[in-house]
Amino acid sequence: MRDLEFFRNAFNDYLRTKLRDKEPASLYEPIKYIMELGGKRLRPVLTLMSTKAFGGNYKESLDAALAIEIFHNFSLVHDDIMDDAPLRRGALTVHEKWNTNTGILSGDVMLINSYQYLEEYNNIIFKSLTSIFSKTAIEVCEGQQYDMDFEERDDVTESEYIKMITYKTAVLVAAAMEMGAIIAGASKKSQNLIYDFGLNLGIAFQLQDDYLDAFGDPKNFGKQMGGDIIENKKTFLYLQSNKMGSSEQRAELKDLFSIKPSCPEEKIKTIKEIYKESGAAMATKKEIEKYTYLAFESLDLLEVSKEKMASLREFGYKLMKREV
Amino acid sequence: MRDLEFFRNAFNDYLRTKLRDKEPASLYEPIKYIMELGGKRLRPVLTLMSTKAFGGNYKESLDAALAIEIFHNFSLVHDDIMDDAPLRRGALTVHEKWNTNTGILSGDVMLINSYQYLEEYNNIIFKSLTSIFSKTAIEVCEGQQYDMDFEERDDVTESEYIKMITYKTAVLVAAAMEMGAIIAGASKKSQNLIYDFGLNLGIAFQLQDDYLDAFGDPKNFGKQMGGDIIENKKTFLYLQSNKMGSSEQRAELKDLFSIKPSCPEEKIKTIKEIYKESGAAMATKKEIEKYTYLAFESLDLLEVSKEKMASLREFGYKLMKREV
Repeated sequence: MRDLEFFRNAFNDYLRTKLRDKEPASLYEPIKYIMELGGKRLRPVLTLMSTKAFGGNYKESLDAALAIEIFHNFSLVHDDIMDDAPLRRGALTVHEKWNTNTGILSGDVMLINSYQYLEEYNNIIFKSLTSIFSKTAIEVCEGQQYDMDFEERDDVTESEYIKMITYKTAVLVAAAMEMGAIIAGASKKSQNLIYDFGLNLGIAFQLQDDYLDAFGDPKNFGKQMGGDIIENKKTFLYLQSNKMGSSEQRAELKDLFSIKPSCPEEKIKTIKEIYKESGAAMATKKEIEKYTYLAFESLDLLEVSKEKMASLREFGYKLMKREV
Repeated sequence: MRDLEFFRNAFNDYLRTKLRDKEPASLYEPIKYIMELGGKRLRPVLTLMSTKAFGGNYKESLDAALAIEIFHNFSLVHDDIMDDAPLRRGALTVHEKWNTNTGILSGDVMLINSYQYLEEYNNIIFKSLTSIFSKTAIEVCEGQQYDMDFEERDDVTESEYIKMITYKTAVLVAAAMEMGAIIAGASKKSQNLIYDFGLNLGIAFQLQDDYLDAFGDPKNFGKQMGGDIIENKKTFLYLQSNKMGSSEQRAELKDLFSIKPSCPEEKIKTIKEIYKESGAAMATKKEIEKYTYLAFESLDLLEVSKEKMASLREFGYKLMKREV
């Protein structure tokens, strides 16, 4: 994945030129802080890749990539307040390092900033980008609301769960790619297909995240193994177990998901066994394959040369084979 | 002010057609709630008035007026969280009626919604409106940050205070009018002049707010009289007293602004005396006149008939003579 590295570096270089010290410092320091914490830069890289794949110059889409990434970080800052999360990428979250008010207001500024980066484009492209951006931003907020609502419910269905992760995660991946296509001047049909590619890839990516949290290799996985289990998070694995498991398994699952033991090792072990033995682990793997397949199907329908699509395809494969 | 009533009704009618019940209800109910709480609708009315004054059809600017008003309400929802305010327009604030997370996320959606309302305009107008809107939105956030920062400082100067209220309040009034002018197809020069009119009127309006909080007629004033004094809020009256007062007056001011007595009547009475006797009350009145004069100066420079500007002028006079 030389392309991936190249685009990530290009993006980070561009980002550095844009992060300035501004007044009031109490508002802008937290923005610099969170933007410099890094992360995979997955979404902006996909924007640049998409522009290139459709025959455009990736430099043309750096501002759109910036808009996408600063929006993504806005959503992390506000979500971390709502989820009361102390850490992000191994460092203190903004509201922990400063306070909740700073997190709210700096987040607001980042959301507005993302619109401002799009002002670099001409009237027609600007409106086109801004419209899909706003629609996506609303969906991301709705996804976060569904996620919070689901915590209070124990009758969430699989399709509701898929809708939630679609909104919370996948639509931004999809929009990142569509915006890259718009900037390259791709046809409306191509824009829709690359959006679908990103959407299904995003869903597969999030399901993979759920799966790896329980079954990933601790050597490779960056986060705490079993973090979702410790937090009693009703991921796809949980929902599937609850559907497919025996009445004993479901009772034990319910029991264990009502406690937070200080030493969670035994709980994690038991839950993982239930996930496997109920068939939920396998069903989740199947679901990941299904959405990956759907993603590649959209890619195949694109009327561009297979060569141009190679790096997107390679990227998709890499995501699906990833262990981190 | 028949125009004022007419435009307010037209705006409220239009707003009602736009507020729909949407899913997830936990996200959209609070938005409907805050938008239906009412308020003076000052900013959207100014957008409609401005469009009419420049020869346009006010109906053309209903969507921009909506964007302005929903943004204003977004800022109230987030500010109320930051200021820990229990009440807004006599009713529970969103974060009190629901919770802080709901306040944050519903606010975010309102901010994004305001951009979406602007999508009703063509490419050129859309970009023009969106650009001034984003610039203004950033300034409003900066103003809120300065306001919070000033609470921790006791060396705030008058010019810093004027800058804070300019950002927090006046720029949105100014942008509301400029956007109305843009939609009417006014010249760039006219856009700038009407912006300046709104800006100076907005500053005068906020200073008037400070003044009326202490010296308004309790019969007419909607809020709690002396609310700023009770909250030890360092308004323009306070800053002026601190500059113009005798050392005794300044010492007493500092003393009284370090306590929050359960029966504040005596404190309010003493502070008001200091505000008067130090000359601060008079100086604040002068400052209000200064900005009102500056506002009308911009209006006079506009190359449109005095008749067309009549309702804006009348509106300005009304604001300055108001006792509520």
